[in-house]
Amino acid sequence: MAFKVGLLGLGTVGTGTAEILMNPAQRHPLLREIELCRVGVRSLDKTRSVHLPSGILTTDLEAIVTDPTIDIVIEVIGGLEPARSLILKAIAHGKHVVTANKAAIARFGDEIFTAANEAGVYVLIEAAVAGGIPVIEPLKQSLCANRIHAITGIINGTTNYILTRMQTEGSDFDTILADAQRLGYAEADPTADIDGFDAADKVAILASLAFGGRIKLPEVYREGIRQISAADIAYAERLGFVIKLLATAKRDAAIEFDETSGQPDQLQVRVHPTLVPKAHPLASVNGVFNAILIEGDPVGQVMFFGPGAGSGPTASAIVSDILNIAAILKVGRERVVQADGTPLLDPLLACSHQHYCTIAPIDDLVTRFYARVLTQDNPGVIGKLGTCFGNHDVSLESVVQIGLRDNLAEIVVITHHVREGNFRHALEEIRCFEAVAIVPSVLRVL
Amino acid sequence: MAFKVGLLGLGTVGTGTAEILMNPAQRHPLLREIELCRVGVRSLDKTRSVHLPSGILTTDLEAIVTDPTIDIVIEVIGGLEPARSLILKAIAHGKHVVTANKAAIARFGDEIFTAANEAGVYVLIEAAVAGGIPVIEPLKQSLCANRIHAITGIINGTTNYILTRMQTEGSDFDTILADAQRLGYAEADPTADIDGFDAADKVAILASLAFGGRIKLPEVYREGIRQISAADIAYAERLGFVIKLLATAKRDAAIEFDETSGQPDQLQVRVHPTLVPKAHPLASVNGVFNAILIEGDPVGQVMFFGPGAGSGPTASAIVSDILNIAAILKVGRERVVQADGTPLLDPLLACSHQHYCTIAPIDDLVTRFYARVLTQDNPGVIGKLGTCFGNHDVSLESVVQIGLRDNLAEIVVITHHVREGNFRHALEEIRCFEAVAIVPSVLRVL
Repeated sequence: MAFKVGLLGLGTVGTGTAEILMNPAQRHPLLREIELCRVGVRSLDKTRSVHLPSGILTTDLEAIVTDPTIDIVIEVIGGLEPARSLILKAIAHGKHVVTANKAAIARFGDEIFTAANEAGVYVLIEAAVAGGIPVIEPLKQSLCANRIHAITGIINGTTNYILTRMQTEGSDFDTILADAQRLGYAEADPTADIDGFDAADKVAILASLAFGGRIKLPEVYREGIRQISAADIAYAERLGFVIKLLATAKRDAAIEFDETSGQPDQLQVRVHPTLVPKAHPLASVNGVFNAILIEGDPVGQVMFFGPGAGSGPTASAIVSDILNIAAILKVGRERVVQADGTPLLDPLLACSHQHYCTIAPIDDLVTRFYARVLTQDNPGVIGKLGTCFGNHDVSLESVVQIGLRDNLAEIVVITHHVREGNFRHALEEIRCFEAVAIVPSVLRVL
Repeated sequence: MAFKVGLLGLGTVGTGTAEILMNPAQRHPLLREIELCRVGVRSLDKTRSVHLPSGILTTDLEAIVTDPTIDIVIEVIGGLEPARSLILKAIAHGKHVVTANKAAIARFGDEIFTAANEAGVYVLIEAAVAGGIPVIEPLKQSLCANRIHAITGIINGTTNYILTRMQTEGSDFDTILADAQRLGYAEADPTADIDGFDAADKVAILASLAFGGRIKLPEVYREGIRQISAADIAYAERLGFVIKLLATAKRDAAIEFDETSGQPDQLQVRVHPTLVPKAHPLASVNGVFNAILIEGDPVGQVMFFGPGAGSGPTASAIVSDILNIAAILKVGRERVVQADGTPLLDPLLACSHQHYCTIAPIDDLVTRFYARVLTQDNPGVIGKLGTCFGNHDVSLESVVQIGLRDNLAEIVVITHHVREGNFRHALEEIRCFEAVAIVPSVLRVL
């Protein structure tokens, strides 16, 4: 019994996927039962690096998702539309779906998974987060006995590449971004990566899996790395930190879980550059690599590390998802409808989320801060800063004048754990001080 | 529909397992469908830290594995017998099995998985390797599309703890071992850990999963860490290395895979202390932590890091395995018998190995070596060493006299990649040189 697969898209990831499907030797024997029978592309004329059976290319993507012989549809065209519509149509036609499309899943996950549950099909998304690194399936299966407390990850390769080079070369953001674009590590329009949108999509997906509820993407707090300067990286280094764009999804420990009401507790879901202590396992994740640190009870800390993007790694995740669907179809190919009328699906692989998680406003975050302030070089400035922070309940760990820059005193402030809202209010006042020229950077500290 | 679980053993791991089962809040909802109904212990009188329903403790372990109402048996008594017999009897009575028993699986895997396949039940073993770190399931599922090239891991926490302390404190092996025993990081009889038996069991299991064949445990090459001295760690440090007990399972790249004959290629499966370059991801895995680096095509390198032992982490793996069995039973509770008479099982979760892998003899290993040699402080000794290595086709990277020790010249030799057999032959000759007092250490270099 073979499983018939239709592939939507034959770009980098689609080609990598087709290459594995065409070349099953020394991989799991189940791969020989997977048959790639249709590949949807934009143009039939393009030269392709992968050798495909003749006649399987088509420009009619609708025909693939409605083809009654196809069991599993792989969506690797990316973007929001027509990806979303094709995924929904495939589901409506009873096809299982494998997709690498983090943007579509983060925005339309509710619609897509609800449709999948009603149709009794699986939508698997291992490739959508951290490329080839297994993280979605471990969260769903290998770690499913845990109460997850926090996920902290470096899940955007482009920004990590840029920050790593800024760190090692001492260069400024604009210089390295231009070079990364030239080398193909950053897109011509780098906004999705640089401004944290890609990481926000991914952390919304991880949070949803870890905490068993859906996430409203606009509620995910997001800051990118454009404002990081060589000066901040150098000061961080002197203080024992590296700067990383971290994505965090965390159960708010301050609020007790109320078992009787079944009320979900509050989550923090956020993406922002962060000062990471050099001894932290994420501090040494450099270049385009990704890593995800998961903290749970009773497992403690586990970390997954590897290539977060690229044709091969992403295709590894996609084809593994295909095989996982095929394996489960083997033991339960007949669709079983339960007493309540819904089709029966594997409860670990299907999405069973019913509610939206409550996400705490960023003002309620309790964290440490690093701020760099340029002031007139007058006596008493540090005292005024300290007093203002104190008035807002912001307890300081250190205030140090690092030196002079453009005839201004350059002062670096590190706080203890403080409420973000309080810190922001203090900073608003400080920005209005006559002696304060500018506050060029404000960063959170892990 | 609840799934009834019988637990064999209520030691550290058994207690951790029971604690999760008794406390499902904020974990996967499927956990509420798991009912712990029997717990087999040696004595009913012992005080237990976990609160269990009254009357479920029993000293009659046989009665658990034959109880017709039980769906899943968890074996956490450890050791070879009666664990093996109880597992086999549970399987014969149609129960699925979850076990943390690396020793039994590495030795009796053939017998156990053959019996399981015939009975149509699953035997899941995530807890047997690397405690709470997901590695078995990722190999079976998340990475199943890959052709695995190599697995390299730090998979014994005790030896890593000892080597880390030797490294940071500069102390000798015996001192740190005694202290580790006092602190509970090493057993009173430390042989299984210190001499590499535990790591050999685990790497045999990993190799079997990665390369799709069974492994004869006596063919796994094994060296422990007793002979590692503070001097070796210090010299390694100076040369840019740390010493780790690495477990390696590797497809021998020298031999081409023969697709037509279906002949499996040769594997290296070995455990030995190794000089690891400081920049390597495994070099910074310290203390009791474990890490497993998997290299495959097309995924590249992925690494899994976390706590390799302990009650909580191991219980996390065990209960996740229970939930994975429950999930699959949900979609296919009826046992289906295939045309060939064998029961139908999920092909990714069940063991489908038919053959034994061919393991290359250690003499055929091609690797770099580090050797420390104490000789009379005569002119010409280094020349004689070099000539002898050359005669045996052993190409040297460096020969350095580090200094004097006990009035003997202490010489450290680093080779290029050479065949182990050749290196050993050269070393046999060198040991007989009149000027050579002793060769206190020979280590492989990653």
